[in-house]
Amino acid sequence: MTARLCLIGIGTGNPEHLTLEAVKAMRAADVILIPRKGADKADLAALRQSICADVLGDDTARLVAFDLPVRDAANLDYRAGVEAWHDAIAACWKQVLDSTLPQGGEAALLVWGDPSLYDSTLRIAARLGLKVRVVPGITSIQALTAAHGMVLNEIGAPFLVTTGRRLREGGWPQGVETLVVMLDGGCAFQTLAPKGVEIWWGAYLGMAAQIILSGTLAEAGPEIIQARKAARAVHGWIMDIYILRWTGAV
Amino acid sequence: MTARLCLIGIGTGNPEHLTLEAVKAMRAADVILIPRKGADKADLAALRQSICADVLGDDTARLVAFDLPVRDAANLDYRAGVEAWHDAIAACWKQVLDSTLPQGGEAALLVWGDPSLYDSTLRIAARLGLKVRVVPGITSIQALTAAHGMVLNEIGAPFLVTTGRRLREGGWPQGVETLVVMLDGGCAFQTLAPKGVEIWWGAYLGMAAQIILSGTLAEAGPEIIQARKAARAVHGWIMDIYILRWTGAV
Ligand SMILES: C[S@@+](CC[C@H](N)C(=O)[O-])C[C@H]1O[C@@H](n2cnc3c(N)ncnc32)[C@H](O)[C@@H]1O
Ligand SMILES: C[S@@+](CC[C@H](N)C(=O)[O-])C[C@H]1O[C@@H](n2cnc3c(N)ncnc32)[C@H](O)[C@@H]1O
Repeated sequence: MTARLCLIGIGTGNPEHLTLEAVKAMRAADVILIPRKGADKADLAALRQSICADVLGDDTARLVAFDLPVRDAANLDYRAGVEAWHDAIAACWKQVLDSTLPQGGEAALLVWGDPSLYDSTLRIAARLGLKVRVVPGITSIQALTAAHGMVLNEIGAPFLVTTGRRLREGGWPQGVETLVVMLDGGCAFQTLAPKGVEIWWGAYLGMAAQIILSGTLAEAGPEIIQARKAARAVHGWIMDIYILRWTGAV
Repeated sequence: MTARLCLIGIGTGNPEHLTLEAVKAMRAADVILIPRKGADKADLAALRQSICADVLGDDTARLVAFDLPVRDAANLDYRAGVEAWHDAIAACWKQVLDSTLPQGGEAALLVWGDPSLYDSTLRIAARLGLKVRVVPGITSIQALTAAHGMVLNEIGAPFLVTTGRRLREGGWPQGVETLVVMLDGGCAFQTLAPKGVEIWWGAYLGMAAQIILSGTLAEAGPEIIQARKAARAVHGWIMDIYILRWTGAV
């Protein structure tokens, strides 16, 4: 008998992002694995807890908290370091699964946003060769467009989803007028010529602390840098995402 | 007093894609507008109805069905034809809102998937100058990745979301190894050189009729064309989406 894994997308900060499918999967799981430490910010761990409390009520016996291994920052080869860390997490999951579900059954893992978007959970799960089921969740991209009440694409046009690092290193990619930028440690839009570009930005989307700003990159850019710095100082951490569109307007 | 609009993403075929926020918004709305005719396939209209029945139970008094104008296919300028049609739909919404919510209040509209992704509802709503709230929903992209249990992006890498038409007309876009192709009337992947490309395809995602196929484009491509044709013949319509990845593997 081997355990099955269910990766449940929980949305990006608003407990009401949970889908009916996610609620059902949480209730049906034999155990819900709650990793402690790891990359989580304290607020995010609290959110996860409150989601479990909302969905499971007093029925918390199936929650299994466990400590994640810490990444070896001393490894100079970044990619190899990440691989080794993912191996270690997989080994850790296996241990928890073997001890909590020795007869088999389904273990659920809650994943921020959607498991398909810049998230390593599926890659770690693949190492265990277990049967994996995915429950999709609202992504930070959708939380951003909803907050701004905007459509992502121009009519019939493509859009590119990329990272702050890529934008900083490669500039505006060829042949596409709409960019979604995620995983940006520090306002990579500053490296672009602002003329003709609009920006829609959001931080802590879906949460009480949500901030959104938008406008021409020339005007809104400096406001965003300012707001981001101030918010980060208050909260001790920040998660932000933005859309850039080449409009050609002056 | 003016009416407010709430655009509610309902996911892409599975009634359990509904989020808790969507359920709450449907229950809180003063009226729920149900457009009849339009681009909807009969199965999709039935799904919408069953979602309303699930969420509202017997409390269906607030459902307001109305007929959408039909697009003038005789207009030779495609873009102008679409603009005129959207104008007509906006006028039609306004009429329904004026008659059902003369004192103001919130009208909900159910949107397939997420309102931010290749959907005209927000553009039509913008014509009315009303206050619009958006509730995000699970997109067909996420339904696809969940069904395949896959991550959309390679580690730290970008991906492009585009249409069948763009792929057919422009070929593989520069500088990006992962493509999501939507709105493809007829297997535009056939126009690519298949070598080194993998595909993950899905139709009727989230529904009972869901089909998924994947593999190298050389092998899976012809299977998909076959399966798509057969499924379309059975159901009378099809909605499909796929991911292409340049892996360089032979
Ligand atoms: C490791 S990725 C995970 C994305 C997640 N799986 C999703 O579906 O959105 C983290 C990045 O997502 C974005 N992000 C996630 N949640 C966010 C939020 N609530 N507000 C703003 N950005 C967020 C940020 O760009 C952040 O750097
Ligand atoms: C007009 S767009 C609307 C997209 C929608 N707003 C969303 O969030 O997915 C319609 C396209 O979405 C894709 N699509 C929507 N629902 C789908 C489903 N259940 N299965 C497969 N593809 C779907 C297809 O590519 C289709 O041509």
